[in-house]
Amino acid sequence: MERTADTIAAIATAPGRGGVAIVRVSGPDAWRVAERVTGRRLSSADAGRFHRARFAAVDDGLLLVFKGPHSYTGEDAVELQGHGGSVAPRRVLEACLTAGARLARRGEFTERAFLNGRLDLSAAEAVIDLVDARTERAADDAFARLGGALTRPFERLYAEAIDLSSQLEHALDFSEEELPPEFDVRLRARVAELKAEVERLMATAREGRLLREGARVVLAGAPNAGKSSLMNALLGTDRAIVNAAAGTTRDAIEEGLVVGGWPICLIDTAGLRTTADPIEAEGVARAQTLIAQADLVLALDCEMAGALKVHAKCDLDVSPADVAPDVLRVSAKTGEGLPELKRALADRLAQLAANGDETCGADVTTRQRELLEKAAAAFARAHAQFTETDYVVAANEVRTAAEELGRLVGKTYSDDLLEALFSRFCVGK
Amino acid sequence: MERTADTIAAIATAPGRGGVAIVRVSGPDAWRVAERVTGRRLSSADAGRFHRARFAAVDDGLLLVFKGPHSYTGEDAVELQGHGGSVAPRRVLEACLTAGARLARRGEFTERAFLNGRLDLSAAEAVIDLVDARTERAADDAFARLGGALTRPFERLYAEAIDLSSQLEHALDFSEEELPPEFDVRLRARVAELKAEVERLMATAREGRLLREGARVVLAGAPNAGKSSLMNALLGTDRAIVNAAAGTTRDAIEEGLVVGGWPICLIDTAGLRTTADPIEAEGVARAQTLIAQADLVLALDCEMAGALKVHAKCDLDVSPADVAPDVLRVSAKTGEGLPELKRALADRLAQLAANGDETCGADVTTRQRELLEKAAAAFARAHAQFTETDYVVAANEVRTAAEELGRLVGKTYSDDLLEALFSRFCVGK
Repeated sequence: MERTADTIAAIATAPGRGGVAIVRVSGPDAWRVAERVTGRRLSSADAGRFHRARFAAVDDGLLLVFKGPHSYTGEDAVELQGHGGSVAPRRVLEACLTAGARLARRGEFTERAFLNGRLDLSAAEAVIDLVDARTERAADDAFARLGGALTRPFERLYAEAIDLSSQLEHALDFSEEELPPEFDVRLRARVAELKAEVERLMATAREGRLLREGARVVLAGAPNAGKSSLMNALLGTDRAIVNAAAGTTRDAIEEGLVVGGWPICLIDTAGLRTTADPIEAEGVARAQTLIAQADLVLALDCEMAGALKVHAKCDLDVSPADVAPDVLRVSAKTGEGLPELKRALADRLAQLAANGDETCGADVTTRQRELLEKAAAAFARAHAQFTETDYVVAANEVRTAAEELGRLVGKTYSDDLLEALFSRFCVGK
Repeated sequence: MERTADTIAAIATAPGRGGVAIVRVSGPDAWRVAERVTGRRLSSADAGRFHRARFAAVDDGLLLVFKGPHSYTGEDAVELQGHGGSVAPRRVLEACLTAGARLARRGEFTERAFLNGRLDLSAAEAVIDLVDARTERAADDAFARLGGALTRPFERLYAEAIDLSSQLEHALDFSEEELPPEFDVRLRARVAELKAEVERLMATAREGRLLREGARVVLAGAPNAGKSSLMNALLGTDRAIVNAAAGTTRDAIEEGLVVGGWPICLIDTAGLRTTADPIEAEGVARAQTLIAQADLVLALDCEMAGALKVHAKCDLDVSPADVAPDVLRVSAKTGEGLPELKRALADRLAQLAANGDETCGADVTTRQRELLEKAAAAFARAHAQFTETDYVVAANEVRTAAEELGRLVGKTYSDDLLEALFSRFCVGK
């Protein structure tokens, strides 16, 4: 508890023009800070209540009083809800700092909630993903994780790995004859089951990444196939939705949009053709790299494995028969076929994201996937050792797997992990 | 009360990335909306309390319960405090709309607060000025008005005007002989006092405008006097402060900065010289218009009535004696003299804003000034009528003045006024 011994404060609402803003204060002195700022005495009868109050001489509004552990952080806390804008919330925050609070670091409120056992790590990660969600689908996923959709499978895996590891270590004290019949067969089967379950969860990572970062959809084809016109036509109807999504590196022309609930990063590339010009050749080489890294390719008038085949100038065709039946006919000029193309795009992304486990209802993050990978590898090594009936090594490997799963649920964590995790947050959360 | 018969909802916090967002609901059905969204039953014991709650299937957070008249609007109300970001607050709002609320118009919460007698018009205007304040000085002014700094003088003026008007109308029923001695002299003196008090309040409008809109400070002088370099030097140190203040029309090069608590709109102009080139002549003509409209002119190496005289290239001077003693010597290149220039600027703005009434502590707005002007004019006409001892006309004029003051305090208002006033607000306030 030493690390949470001081009292922190921050503006918790988004900056900018708004009617209302909130300054959050949490820690052992939170009530005293509020008393100094509002001039109001607080008693245990105030817990769970709010009051109209003046904040120093700079603002007025509502004071919400929380008694630990019944608060977001699990500590004593208050919220000062005053006027929005750029000056008033800052001055209320300054009044709280003057009254004894310290400015919170990014994510420090949620970090304290984790340290005080109010949230596990997967729920804590979900908090920031919910705030950052750009689509309803991503918000649904984050909210499911916040509600423990991943906590339960992670906790179960961890408990089973711990149990298996202790059984194995216990078995080391006996000779093979003293052990129950088929002991190694049963345990080996359990290791295989755990490995399979870890891999099943890993498979959800792809949908998670698609939801959080957006699918990389690359437009490819010969020069003049209509790639740029198609890009503009797709953006023309949907662009406004993710105006705020800028900020990714733009090595080609990249634009964000949302199709069928999927955030998409649409990438235009140089026309693909063999060329003697070294600069154009470089553009083509980069296009090929982008195509290789894409989640999905829209191939304009060309063949490409796994790509969605598109013909973008159907307004110029004499008859539909000019185009093969498995090619989507679109006119970037008239908009014909665009709804069908979008539907096909959304279907493909849903297929890409499909992970065989519909019961979980949420998707693991990149950090979680890395830990799951390590656990799966350790289970695989443990499984291999059973063949040689080397319980010592198998027990070690299962313990390694249990440790990785412990990191996943936050049973074991390092300061570095916490810092890396919570620095993605905004101040005030 | 018919106009407030429905239940309104809106996001009350600023849009964008933030840990927490608030959806406000107000009106007779507010509790029912909250019950539908959270699945929690509310009773009178919940008033003034907050609870953890789930919002539909899309978010969770705190539910604050207000029982009218103990709320911002004076109506039954709830606040749903959930996760910030772009998706979660919108979905909570949608859940409230589905549950029976209607989307609020701009400023509709504050409008209802006014209509329900929770705020007078000058306090309502102060709410939006506090949210929009860009400097501490402007926030102080708005907060003072929110606390009633203008309400009291306005109410007193209004009450006295009503009293005077009724005395005059009563006097019409009597002949001159029946009236108390010196009746007209006393009443005439009171009209003069009221007129003087109205004018004293009007004088505070200038500071109010300077605080809200920023002072227009124009750089003027011959070509090559160093105007643009001085502009850059001033902005170089202060520009970041009001980055968010963009949005004014830029007919010349205009930039915002804050000097000594005063928001300033700094305007660079074409160099002043007689020229045969019609395009340059047009630039010079526009510069002269800007100079005429300026609150303050910085005159570089030239003479101009009321201007602050500046020499901007003191690093090139051989000796200080090259420059007259009443000229501020500055080097845009080295930064020498810039602090002194800023201090002189702030002093001049304080002088400009000085209004002779330090006791009021707040400044009238443009709308209020217009009403005060009409009241002052009516008092002036009433005063003139006393000379001719025409009580009928004098009584009419005093009643006109009382009506204007009634508009000021919101005793009389039109739908148009309310619409104009509250449309300046953000939705959710």
